[in-house]
Formats: sequence, structure tokens, C-alpha cells
Amino acid sequence: MTLDDLIQRLRDFAAARDWEPYHTPKNLVMALSGEVGELTALFQWLTPDESVRALENPELKAEVLDELADVLLYLTRLADVLGADLLEAANAKIDRNEVRFPATE
Amino acid sequence: MTLDDLIQRLRDFAAARDWEPYHTPKNLVMALSGEVGELTALFQWLTPDESVRALENPELKAEVLDELADVLLYLTRLADVLGADLLEAANAKIDRNEVRFPATE
Amino acid sequence: MTLDDLIQRLRDFAAARDWEPYHTPKNLVMALSGEVGELTALFQWLTPDESVRALENPELKAEVLDELADVLLYLTRLADVLGADLLEAANAKIDRNEVRFPATE
Amino acid sequence: MTLDDLIQRLRDFAAARDWEPYHTPKNLVMALSGEVGELTALFQWLTPDESVRALENPELKAEVLDELADVLLYLTRLADVLGADLLEAANAKIDRNEVRFPATE
Repeated sequence: MTLDDLIQRLRDFAAARDWEPYHTPKNLVMALSGEVGELTALFQWLTPDESVRALENPELKAEVLDELADVLLYLTRLADVLGADLLEAANAKIDRNEVRFPATE
Repeated sequence: MTLDDLIQRLRDFAAARDWEPYHTPKNLVMALSGEVGELTALFQWLTPDESVRALENPELKAEVLDELADVLLYLTRLADVLGADLLEAANAKIDRNEVRFPATE
Repeated sequence: MTLDDLIQRLRDFAAARDWEPYHTPKNLVMALSGEVGELTALFQWLTPDESVRALENPELKAEVLDELADVLLYLTRLADVLGADLLEAANAKIDRNEVRFPATE
Repeated sequence: MTLDDLIQRLRDFAAARDWEPYHTPKNLVMALSGEVGELTALFQWLTPDESVRALENPELKAEVLDELADVLLYLTRLADVLGADLLEAANAKIDRNEVRFPATE
């Protein structure tokens, strides 16, 4: 299973439900933002140390995995409708960051 | 280039800069949220139709690709430090959505 | 009822529940962000025109008012624990914006 | 200076710049979300303890006040174009929270 498989699965999912008219980039950015808000809420009262062990709690683990999934789904779908290659963009950004933040010795 | 390659590249990047102590899930959720905020700002005054054509403007295209990249980088890094498998979680979520939202005929 | 009354009411509310240790600025920023995510989700599939009439639907109206309230509550509480004067900061910002964006004639 | 004064000042500001057509609730929710993202970014690498002392650093203080202001400005403007009374909604929400979360003795 790759990111390309996920892109295709989301295309089929939207087409089978006639959801394509709703999937404008503007709407999908908002959906992505809403899911990140839900993910944030799961961590808001945890200390940094507690956040490291978040997946040790089975109930919290299920919620975190569910929200991480939603964030990736909307991010992938957004990039697809825009015609952007997410992995290529991410690698190009790390290339730039390597120049911007030189490694310590 | 796959998502697994990206995970490894981000691990190496953080290790080479001694950034690992800052990369708690709590901090990374906030960083993810901040980048989604920057992405949202690029689309806030566009109509839905204008948002569809966002990548036709070279300057806006560069900004959108940069923010999409940042969102994927922090999402990937967050899942990695939590010990979560993003693609597996995303596929499991679509499985559940297929039951929750049956396709139209 | 003024914003100052609201600040005091939130102080009393947190003190009566021993919530003050959780109300660090870092945690409250995350809580604010989570509530804005919920507010965003209410508008994500609406067209701009539909969003103008959002309060005409009684069920949606109740949800929007609830989320607007949560956003103001966390914003007010955050400013209070930081020792910031929200209204003063907002007016100073409009002063700067009047210079930055001169009015059309 | 009250919240009502701020509402009026923002109405005049938008009218003088012909910005009213852009100020749909959908667009303003996105603008609010973008500003909360910028505020979040200021706190993302701080420990909870460091976040308590954020306003002791003059440079960070100026940035935090600027973002708090932007959040209040867009929240106020959003509520105004929707026809919602922010302070009334916030007080009604605390009333409900007092029932939902009884005070400890």
C-alpha cells in the first residue's frame, strides 16, 4: 500500500458518492483544518511527557489513529485535486531546509 | 521515493540537528496546526472556483506547494514519534467510512 | 456584561474546579485551536452564500453560537493568564492596519 | 473602549476599503483559523513553563499581542456578519458548563 494507492482509493470513494463538487481546494483546506483541530484537542491537556506515551492508552490510541488518518486523507485529497505531488513537494522542502538549517557537527 | 523514505529522512534530519528533544507529540501537533494555518491563509479570500485554479498562478503555486510540504513533513514526523503507521491508519479509516457512508447507486 | 466581567467569570470558574494548573498558555492555545477547528468544520461544505445565511437554520445556529462562544472563552482566558489586554491589543492593531492599508477614496 | 466599539470600528474599516464582499462567514472563519495558526506557531517549541513567561521577552511579547489582536479582530468581525452576539453566547456557554462540570467542594 502506497500513497498513490491512497490517492486512487480517495478518487473512487468521492466519485461513487457524487462528492466531487464539494471537493474544491477551499473546502478541503477547511476540512483538513477541522481534522487537525480534533487532533489538537486530544493533546491539549497532556504534558509533553504524557504526549510521548499517548499510544499506550488503548482508548486514546484509537482516537489519535483516527484523527491522524483523517488528516492524511484530506491532505492527500487536497493535493490530488490541486494537481500537486505531495512527496515531491516534501522532498524539495527538506532539500531547502538542509541549506536553511545546516547540521550541527 | 516513498513515505517510508520520507520518515527516515526526517529522522536523520532531526538527529543531525539535535532537535529530537523538541519533537514531542504535543509540540509536533502544534507545529502541524501552525502549518495548516499558513495553508489556510493562502486560500482564505479565494472563491471556491478560484481555489480550483490556484496552481495556475506561479507565485501562489510555490507558496501552496511549500505549505503542503510542511504539513506532510510534520504529520509524518508526528506519526513516527508516536509509533503510528499513517498509511495503515488511513486505509482502516476508509474501510470504516465505506460502511458509514454507503455509495450511491 | 462586558469583556472584563467575562474574564472574572472564567477566573472563578477555573479556580472553583482546580483547573488553574492546566491553564498554561501552551495548553490554552491548543484548546483555542481545537475550538476554531470545530467552528471551521461547521462551515467547510457550505458555499460562501450559504455561509451568510448560516444562522437561519436553528440547529446550525445553535452549533455556531456554541463554537463562537468556546473560541471567545479560550481566547479571553489565554489573554488573561498571559497578562495581555485583548481590547487594547486589538485597537493598537487596527491603528497599525489603518497605516498599512490606506482607505480607498 | 468596549467590544461594541470594536465591532463598529471593524465595520467602518471594511466599508472604507470596499472589503465587505470578501467578508463572508466562510472566508472569515478561514482568516480566523489562519491567525490562530500563527499564534500557535509562537508557542509550539516552548515548554509549558516557558509559555507562562512568554510576555517577559519583549520581541515575543510584541508578536503574541499582535496575533491575539488578529484573532479577536476576525472573531469579532465574523460574529458581526453572522448577526451573533459574542458576549451573550459566551455567557450562555458558561451557564451550560456550570451544569456540565460541577465545582469541586
